[in-house]
Amino acid sequence: MSKEKKILAFGAGKISKPCVQYLLRRGYKVMVVDQFEQNVLRTAGGHPNAVPVVGNAVAEPEKYIREFAPDVVVCMLPTAFMAQTAKKCLDEGVSMIGASYAKEPVRALDAEAKAKGLRILCEMGVDPGIDHMSAVHKIKEIQAAGGEIESFVSVCGALPDLSANNNPIGYKLSWAPESLVGASLRDARIMTDGAVREMNGGTTYQNPSFMEIKGLGWFETYCNADSIPYLEAYGIDGATTIERGTLRYPGWCEMVTHMQKLHIFDEEPRDFGGYTYAALTKELCGMAGDGRGAKACAAEFLGVEPYSTSIMKLEWLGLFDEKPVMPANGSLRDMITAIYGQKLVFEPGEKDIVVMQHQYVVREKCGARKRVTSTMVDRGVVSEESAIARTTGLPMGIGAHLAASGAVKGTGVLIPTTEDIYVPALEELGREGISFAEHEEEA
Amino acid sequence: MSKEKKILAFGAGKISKPCVQYLLRRGYKVMVVDQFEQNVLRTAGGHPNAVPVVGNAVAEPEKYIREFAPDVVVCMLPTAFMAQTAKKCLDEGVSMIGASYAKEPVRALDAEAKAKGLRILCEMGVDPGIDHMSAVHKIKEIQAAGGEIESFVSVCGALPDLSANNNPIGYKLSWAPESLVGASLRDARIMTDGAVREMNGGTTYQNPSFMEIKGLGWFETYCNADSIPYLEAYGIDGATTIERGTLRYPGWCEMVTHMQKLHIFDEEPRDFGGYTYAALTKELCGMAGDGRGAKACAAEFLGVEPYSTSIMKLEWLGLFDEKPVMPANGSLRDMITAIYGQKLVFEPGEKDIVVMQHQYVVREKCGARKRVTSTMVDRGVVSEESAIARTTGLPMGIGAHLAASGAVKGTGVLIPTTEDIYVPALEELGREGISFAEHEEEA
Repeated sequence: MSKEKKILAFGAGKISKPCVQYLLRRGYKVMVVDQFEQNVLRTAGGHPNAVPVVGNAVAEPEKYIREFAPDVVVCMLPTAFMAQTAKKCLDEGVSMIGASYAKEPVRALDAEAKAKGLRILCEMGVDPGIDHMSAVHKIKEIQAAGGEIESFVSVCGALPDLSANNNPIGYKLSWAPESLVGASLRDARIMTDGAVREMNGGTTYQNPSFMEIKGLGWFETYCNADSIPYLEAYGIDGATTIERGTLRYPGWCEMVTHMQKLHIFDEEPRDFGGYTYAALTKELCGMAGDGRGAKACAAEFLGVEPYSTSIMKLEWLGLFDEKPVMPANGSLRDMITAIYGQKLVFEPGEKDIVVMQHQYVVREKCGARKRVTSTMVDRGVVSEESAIARTTGLPMGIGAHLAASGAVKGTGVLIPTTEDIYVPALEELGREGISFAEHEEEA
Repeated sequence: MSKEKKILAFGAGKISKPCVQYLLRRGYKVMVVDQFEQNVLRTAGGHPNAVPVVGNAVAEPEKYIREFAPDVVVCMLPTAFMAQTAKKCLDEGVSMIGASYAKEPVRALDAEAKAKGLRILCEMGVDPGIDHMSAVHKIKEIQAAGGEIESFVSVCGALPDLSANNNPIGYKLSWAPESLVGASLRDARIMTDGAVREMNGGTTYQNPSFMEIKGLGWFETYCNADSIPYLEAYGIDGATTIERGTLRYPGWCEMVTHMQKLHIFDEEPRDFGGYTYAALTKELCGMAGDGRGAKACAAEFLGVEPYSTSIMKLEWLGLFDEKPVMPANGSLRDMITAIYGQKLVFEPGEKDIVVMQHQYVVREKCGARKRVTSTMVDRGVVSEESAIARTTGLPMGIGAHLAASGAVKGTGVLIPTTEDIYVPALEELGREGISFAEHEEEA
């Protein structure tokens, strides 16, 4: 590069290292700010062009922007701080990249960013992020050849690799438990052959199916969130089937539905002082006075046999334990979040996997129909660099590079569904080993 | 060896190769007889000391015994032919090794074998086989140090390796489906703290629990067969807890109990002409005239939600399919055996695993109590040499070597619970890479 370019990275959690190291490999000077020294040092990795700073990026981002005068800021702080940091970036006249959704309150900064010729590039992670880029890229290619998308189904999962899938739950946390738990009551909406189906209040977990990802094996999948807006966002208004789903190993949805029935995802603050998990579970079953144990009560309440796998899972998680509920002051959701955080852990050396698959049914120009499957698989060692960290952090680094090098054409609040972003970004991801394998067959 | 020794191997199925190749490495001349040329050639592996013979070992074993004049016969034919082959061996004056249980009608040959100074060494596989040898070896060691076994729990499983555990059932067949299905209604008996518990007619599947095998992860375990006789067989009459169990991945027992309720393991011959799986399932639910689909009927009959994981598994196996039942003439058990054989298959290159763990609680001479865990893990590539083939075939080869070299002291129908057999056999297994890792802790 003719002039040394500089990127300022806020936050040095697990996703930051792949982002920052990518930018350093790309020749940027990168300042990393985080409140924990060990995070900053791990992320900087002793690189001569890295400037590790222990500081409060949430409270005073402008301080670091003024000091470092970066070309672009990458915000890897928790989602809650996305909007306020973006505002400070605009105040200081610098563009920002992030992985969170381009919704309010970030969305409200669109006019100001446009007026200043700056960009707040959002949804530059894996989901959202790589999903948009890869899908829109393929859709445009199909449409350019005169094809029409009749059906679009897309699934994604961040899971333990099979080799690490060794607890009864079939899941381990490679990211924040809050996000996992938070999805447990989510509304979902899909369209199948023109019929829209709403599944509200977490009932999507009552509608799982098994899906094979060739070369990997069988997964459980269920619809996540509202898929309908993607008809417009991806430019496939003519499609009659659209569905975006989450991948899990078999048995996940059944357990979540049973937890839902026990109201375990309630957010209302409670005082659990004096409660054991067993006593609390019996109360949640409306059977506090029952002489039997929590396991028998839960089985009766849920209408399943005490030896059913789901009851065994709840037992394994500790919901029938005669131990004090932790945290003593919090919601049921806080309780299950804490349990997940304790029990669903990767051991050192164990691998995670990120799997994304898009399935298109295409009516070709000649009238023939084909099914196109496009699959991305990434693995990582969680104690070193997880696949979820890599597939989230790299797109942000790439987004920062594209913004700093002038490749991003638009201004305002952006997402990577335009060619100027997704074409070079997918190329860069491919060079970093993250790419989609395609398979076509007659439909 | 001073004089060339010869072993005659009947049967060249998958377990034969590790047995025969071991004996060839040991310097024996080995004749292998099987009706299929490809089996014989694969087992012999082109070794100059192997004599591959295509022939009917079941119908005329005496022909090959007379022709080859072996020092010992290894019988790797199906269990049903064990007794008749053993009788022919005695008639011809040669000892025989096998992996099946030393029960009737083989047991009845004890007096004749003793009278002739010959031995029918049974239970020289993995389970039964390695289980006896490793357990008795450790028990004698504990007792020799003045310790007393209070509790003995032993589990074993032949499973897909985690890396191959990628279907919704959590199981693939590395051995004959008949044996798997045949175990589905088995009686079981255990003793816990002095209380004997009988679980008859397959109800053992209603009593699963989760068990962690350190370094591997969590499994489902349930009691198999009658554990009580092992108090005497292993010389631990003072123990108040004894339990022998099978290891599976979580969810297996729930599915089997649901199949039991549908009578899927019935052996009565039927005419399924004109039946689809869906129609048959509805009839098994007593809901042949119900207007709903087989899935809804099965869920109602089993008292679970249609979206429960177990129902999804039955669906995945094809029990709700609108396809003709196969075989059209056979029992329900034949039907599920065929389904298992089609669906629960290893892909080329996928690995299986054999896991065995003994858990002893010991009252030591000094009064202290300790828990000793002894674990064996073996992995193999199923399309080449599976772990189950290796751990079954090697002990038979070793048994033949010990018998041929005069190490086996007893005569009659034997099992490997005597020092003359298990000490050298465990040493040989260790040299072949099959050994137990021990862990001790205070109890």
